[in-house]
Amino acid sequence: MNLRNIGYILGCVIDVEGVFMLMPFICGLVYGEDEAFSFALVAVICLIVGTLLILLKPKNMSFSAREGVMTVALCWIVLSLFGAIPFVINGDIPSYLNALFETVSGFTTTGASILDDVEALSHASLFWRNFTNWIGGMGVLVFLLAFLPLKGGTHMYLMKAESPGPSVEKFVPNVRGTAMILYGIYVALSALEFVFLLFGDIPLFDCICTVFGTAGTGGFAVRNASIAAYSAYVQWVVAVFMMLFGVNFSVYFLLLMRKVKQSVLYEEIRWYFGIIVVSCVIIVVNCFDNALSLADNIRNAFFQVTSVISSTGFSTADFNLWHSAGKTVLVLVMFVGACAGSTGGGIKVSRIVIMAKSIKKELLYYAHPKSVRKIKFCGKVVEHEVIRTINVFFITYVLIYAFSLLIISFDDASFETNFTAVVATLNNIGPGLGDVGPTGNFNFFSPLSKIVLMFNMVAGRLELYPLLLVFSLKSWKEGITDAAKGVSTRLHHSEKPQEQ
Amino acid sequence: MNLRNIGYILGCVIDVEGVFMLMPFICGLVYGEDEAFSFALVAVICLIVGTLLILLKPKNMSFSAREGVMTVALCWIVLSLFGAIPFVINGDIPSYLNALFETVSGFTTTGASILDDVEALSHASLFWRNFTNWIGGMGVLVFLLAFLPLKGGTHMYLMKAESPGPSVEKFVPNVRGTAMILYGIYVALSALEFVFLLFGDIPLFDCICTVFGTAGTGGFAVRNASIAAYSAYVQWVVAVFMMLFGVNFSVYFLLLMRKVKQSVLYEEIRWYFGIIVVSCVIIVVNCFDNALSLADNIRNAFFQVTSVISSTGFSTADFNLWHSAGKTVLVLVMFVGACAGSTGGGIKVSRIVIMAKSIKKELLYYAHPKSVRKIKFCGKVVEHEVIRTINVFFITYVLIYAFSLLIISFDDASFETNFTAVVATLNNIGPGLGDVGPTGNFNFFSPLSKIVLMFNMVAGRLELYPLLLVFSLKSWKEGITDAAKGVSTRLHHSEKPQEQ
Repeated sequence: MNLRNIGYILGCVIDVEGVFMLMPFICGLVYGEDEAFSFALVAVICLIVGTLLILLKPKNMSFSAREGVMTVALCWIVLSLFGAIPFVINGDIPSYLNALFETVSGFTTTGASILDDVEALSHASLFWRNFTNWIGGMGVLVFLLAFLPLKGGTHMYLMKAESPGPSVEKFVPNVRGTAMILYGIYVALSALEFVFLLFGDIPLFDCICTVFGTAGTGGFAVRNASIAAYSAYVQWVVAVFMMLFGVNFSVYFLLLMRKVKQSVLYEEIRWYFGIIVVSCVIIVVNCFDNALSLADNIRNAFFQVTSVISSTGFSTADFNLWHSAGKTVLVLVMFVGACAGSTGGGIKVSRIVIMAKSIKKELLYYAHPKSVRKIKFCGKVVEHEVIRTINVFFITYVLIYAFSLLIISFDDASFETNFTAVVATLNNIGPGLGDVGPTGNFNFFSPLSKIVLMFNMVAGRLELYPLLLVFSLKSWKEGITDAAKGVSTRLHHSEKPQEQ
Repeated sequence: MNLRNIGYILGCVIDVEGVFMLMPFICGLVYGEDEAFSFALVAVICLIVGTLLILLKPKNMSFSAREGVMTVALCWIVLSLFGAIPFVINGDIPSYLNALFETVSGFTTTGASILDDVEALSHASLFWRNFTNWIGGMGVLVFLLAFLPLKGGTHMYLMKAESPGPSVEKFVPNVRGTAMILYGIYVALSALEFVFLLFGDIPLFDCICTVFGTAGTGGFAVRNASIAAYSAYVQWVVAVFMMLFGVNFSVYFLLLMRKVKQSVLYEEIRWYFGIIVVSCVIIVVNCFDNALSLADNIRNAFFQVTSVISSTGFSTADFNLWHSAGKTVLVLVMFVGACAGSTGGGIKVSRIVIMAKSIKKELLYYAHPKSVRKIKFCGKVVEHEVIRTINVFFITYVLIYAFSLLIISFDDASFETNFTAVVATLNNIGPGLGDVGPTGNFNFFSPLSKIVLMFNMVAGRLELYPLLLVFSLKSWKEGITDAAKGVSTRLHHSEKPQEQ
């Protein structure tokens, strides 16, 4: 294990975080809040620690696959550890564990909160809380990749570990360019939402924070009533943008390249929109005995479905009060999640579709043992390798799910609460049902449960394996043994991983 | 599609059912009940219909894989359709849909009931209800396989479709011998339980019915209080035998062959017992604040865990009242299920263990992309093919689960009720939590939900694919097209499937 390499990347990330923290500081100054200075203090600490780590820069900046993956996971942990400190110093969230929960929830774009009263927080803290959503949406490392001087396949390892979906698509031959394009689309879409929101009756501060929450599919709101605090127009804008941020960014790239036909035919997107439409119809039909107008029901259904499928977690209605079928649709959509290559979480539409196709294939094979069929997705044959990875991903997902459910059940909350608390964190959504519904929060959980749920959030954001590797004692032991033996597990140019 | 072939097997199965139905008739006569004659009447109908179908016997008795699989699924459906009639005629269960639910639940060894008051039924009906548990446990086709004159690989196709677990193990080179040995062990273990129960303070009729319910891991009880109606001794005996019937029958065969060491080292068994012990410990610790003695808590925990892991579904305690962790353990154990090659349902211990190992392998592969590792189970390398089948099985399982959950959620029961109603039927357990808990029943569900839950029971018993094939319009169309074209999809001797 080349600890210096890992330290260098960590240093870069901490430095970037320090710079980012100046934003809430400025925001707090504008509002004349004392709380702002906690951000300045921690920003300085970050810059010092980060720079010290960078100074230890090693000569050879290449990574083995394991190191790359573990570095990514460690970056996310370190980001949260530092990011939580200002909340404690300025007293907005006095308990460090709670502050950490809130920060992990922010960076992983989950949006699960331990706060009873969001509106009691200072503007500086609210800004930082939502800014973590925005930073986490695209990922800090994708940002860094545009600038870091790394060798060979290293970029790819890092990007693969941080990007959602079964395989990373590169728009241009090099990873740096791809990272830049991704951030470009991200910033442009955010700006577009900002402009649309400006036309609504929403304060500027709320507008900025809502954009952060939507773009990162994080879902932190600055009002206790979440987006229900704003007009119907604002709700529609946010709903549409939640949906758009859940779309595979490749589609936007194709649109930019004027390959309109290709982008429309993108299979994952059609499934994504199909699921949204079907879910909305079921919910509207299932809820039509309430007192609201059809238009309100449609807006509420559309908002909640896009919020949940994109794993954002904003709310405009207390779906805890819905009928059972409406709630079940939301829970199922929570599992599905957004498209691969978007800022959203969940299992991802592409994985679900490919898994469904593999069932069909298996059924045919069962009937005709001699038949040979390939699974196609987006017009291409899906490699056997990718299918296996998806299958095992799903199994890992379910097993992590089961263990988490077991541990948090010791807090004696209802089955519905526990079940959806795990969905809501592992899929980076935010609210669930029962006590963790839109009007509840996660504060009642024990410290152990909070740690498990934080683990789920990071595991969900990084798609399981990176975090599991960090928590596998074996991988540390092996790494140290390799280093002691002088075994080079670094990549030579010829060995660089296949860049799909 | 060779409909005559399928009809011949169906005829055999219906004939056998007719003979079996004479048992409740005799039982009813002993108790001087009028209800008995309904069984005699339907027995005669079965024998006539069955014999007519047999008379159409085709010349060539070989099956394609698809035909074999579909035949098995059709057999189970037809068995239930006939088996439900007596309940309606004698008025014990006036609604045919309810009678069908009860019969499907019986044959699939689920034990989910729609009855409010079991004790109101006639002895004849109670006997038949529990006898379906016993018949379904080992499977009617396995029974027939010992006698049917089938060609080449046909036996194997039929057996594969009906036997639980990822692969069928043959004890002796031919399928007939294996089927006979399986039934021998089944009868012997049932007799042993009967003898042990005789020493308890339990009426003879209850004793026989309880043996049927335990051996088939069905879980139908003849008392409203289930097994809580009997002494602690009886409860212990039943608990131990539930556990034993959930063991892979290969282990008993190894013991018979005096290969004690091999049987003890059987990996699946060690996991099975391990899960039972860990679950009991968690439940006892989680429940220790109740008013019962430690001994009672241990007995209750052990009984409920063995009942659920073996997918029997008897109960001695209302686990609906347990703390959340105890309930969660039970729900997780419901998913695990028994060992492959037992009479129990669920995903099966071997599948869970192999899936867990595939995660470990994937993680290693993720860290070392060039590493090649094999998964071992029970000391043997697990073929790539088997792993793929298990993965897709699991995905199919979860998707069927999700769809069922969605449909029954329209009845507006609680999430806990719906969630566990699906587990309880798909895994052939019986009771769940909430309204379908040990003190509740399935009668409140709408007809549509009952049909979905029946589908789940048969799908669970036959391990998904056979039933999916029957309900796939495409497979019927293909079959008819093949037949019309005169395409022979029959097996030649050289093509017979690999008999593992």
